Amino acid sequence: VKLSDIGEFALIERLAARVHNVEAGEVIVGIGDDAAVWKAGGAYYIATTDTMVEGVHFSPGSSSWGDVGWKAMASNLSDIAAMGGWPPYFALVTLALPAKTDVETAEALYDGLAECAREYGVAIVGGDTVRAPQAIVTVALIASAKLHAGKPRLLRRDKAQPGDVIAVTGTLGDSAGGLRRLQEGPAASDPLIRRHLRPQPRTNTGAEAAQRGILCGIDVSDGLLQDIGHICERSPVGAVLQAADVPLSAELRAAYPKDALQLACTGGEDYELVLVGRAPIIEKMAKELTSERITVIGKIVSDPEHRVRLLNDNGEEIRFERAGWDAFR
Amino acid sequence: VKLSDIGEFALIERLAARVHNVEAGEVIVGIGDDAAVWKAGGAYYIATTDTMVEGVHFSPGSSSWGDVGWKAMASNLSDIAAMGGWPPYFALVTLALPAKTDVETAEALYDGLAECAREYGVAIVGGDTVRAPQAIVTVALIASAKLHAGKPRLLRRDKAQPGDVIAVTGTLGDSAGGLRRLQEGPAASDPLIRRHLRPQPRTNTGAEAAQRGILCGIDVSDGLLQDIGHICERSPVGAVLQAADVPLSAELRAAYPKDALQLACTGGEDYELVLVGRAPIIEKMAKELTSERITVIGKIVSDPEHRVRLLNDNGEEIRFERAGWDAFR
Repeated sequence: VKLSDIGEFALIERLAARVHNVEAGEVIVGIGDDAAVWKAGGAYYIATTDTMVEGVHFSPGSSSWGDVGWKAMASNLSDIAAMGGWPPYFALVTLALPAKTDVETAEALYDGLAECAREYGVAIVGGDTVRAPQAIVTVALIASAKLHAGKPRLLRRDKAQPGDVIAVTGTLGDSAGGLRRLQEGPAASDPLIRRHLRPQPRTNTGAEAAQRGILCGIDVSDGLLQDIGHICERSPVGAVLQAADVPLSAELRAAYPKDALQLACTGGEDYELVLVGRAPIIEKMAKELTSERITVIGKIVSDPEHRVRLLNDNGEEIRFERAGWDAFR
Repeated sequence: VKLSDIGEFALIERLAARVHNVEAGEVIVGIGDDAAVWKAGGAYYIATTDTMVEGVHFSPGSSSWGDVGWKAMASNLSDIAAMGGWPPYFALVTLALPAKTDVETAEALYDGLAECAREYGVAIVGGDTVRAPQAIVTVALIASAKLHAGKPRLLRRDKAQPGDVIAVTGTLGDSAGGLRRLQEGPAASDPLIRRHLRPQPRTNTGAEAAQRGILCGIDVSDGLLQDIGHICERSPVGAVLQAADVPLSAELRAAYPKDALQLACTGGEDYELVLVGRAPIIEKMAKELTSERITVIGKIVSDPEHRVRLLNDNGEEIRFERAGWDAFR
């Protein structure tokens, strides 16, 4: 059996089953959420890691090395945001590069990492440099969790309950639209391309949601339907989404009018947040948070099959060929 | 200019210069030591990351996937040991694998990681799985530092002083001997091969040294002379080593009588510790620590050129072509 047969998420399940943590008492959230959480000395820490491989996650032709660095840092910040994590942030950066790489390339990559780090208050404290046949950037990021009555405030994947509403930040599909535009050929920078190359993780909103008592969330990194599917698997529940409510930018509608909804639902790399909680809390937050748009797109239901169903205005289900990105498929 | 022209360590210097940490006040040890140290909420944390790339750091022909996993975890533990770090340990594991990889291969790799983690009390709390053209294992490991009068007890690279003695744990060169044996063709497992494939990082000894007030150390990962060179560069000082005092195992002397010293001085991957400190403290520790051999091999001297000189019994310098491993050369 090959990894391409079982896919990324079955692999993670199988690997997680092989870990028997000695000090499990200190681990609050282990393998299977956006980030890990543990307790040490009365405080709670959140850690995540994310890797980008040349030829798989980026190609030097369509993004600059600085953009690659920015996104490698941003994707980790988004995982922390998806847990409701809080600064300070400390990062370890691993660069794997061919020996024939220009020093300027390594420096440009690092400048992108450092630029994103600076903007979000991340201290780059160390890392590793190794030789490899292609460029690979791995960031490990550590943050802390805010406490409430001695307990950490977290957004977890396994806390959705029937009756909860599902909301998303910002607009979806812009990153996938930007990627398509880049693939269509040389393009002047536009808002969609910029969203693809320089995503802005929602760290403030994630922390704010956790502070307000929202218990469940995930970031949109692989594709909205697939990412909500992780919540449904782990809670376990089902989800019903209204296609008409999925927030689309004017730029995406203009550029890809026919495919905008599909890009928004399956495209990934938006690094927006999905927030799941009681309607009054979500609606209050949506009203009070002026820095960012929060849109209710559906609700959590009981469903033994843990389905995520996207409905049109007539209540008919809309299906796409893939729900999102799988590393091995 | 290519990375192969300037080498790994000049690259690290150049990248470190591009990081301007916002919250530098909380960073106690940044880029350039075995691991990073920061302060958060009154406690001190130590973090490191290390990557192994198929075809660069290992080849599936000569080591099993379980061995690869073990060593990926062990090399990180050794970095923590080299800082004097203390449990609990939390690890993030990133596996990059081709999609055509057998699931059993991924599981065997993970079993090796988990076996080493269990033996050293490491909790694997999360990670990432991605597709790549070859196998790459990255571990990020977080530990804590013991406090003394509110300050962290650490082994740093920049704390050597003229007059300090230089000691090493265990015996050196066995791992390089084991690698040579594997390269010579099919071999039954022997102590040298076992030391190469299943290194035992000196976490207890590193923590004990820090507790006893030793301030300076590094692990032997790239080659003894080169690793001591990092201490000399950063302190800055020079070092004089007595070749006759470098501890060699009986197995290494028997297997490679002519090359044993060179393997011990330049071979790397022994994951023993170099400890540098005042003679009475080092000698007392060597006497009292029964679990492991500690051997004084030289002393720190003033030297504006930061040289590491290895002397024979006649006081003549012994030179080797390379001092150790450089990722890009």
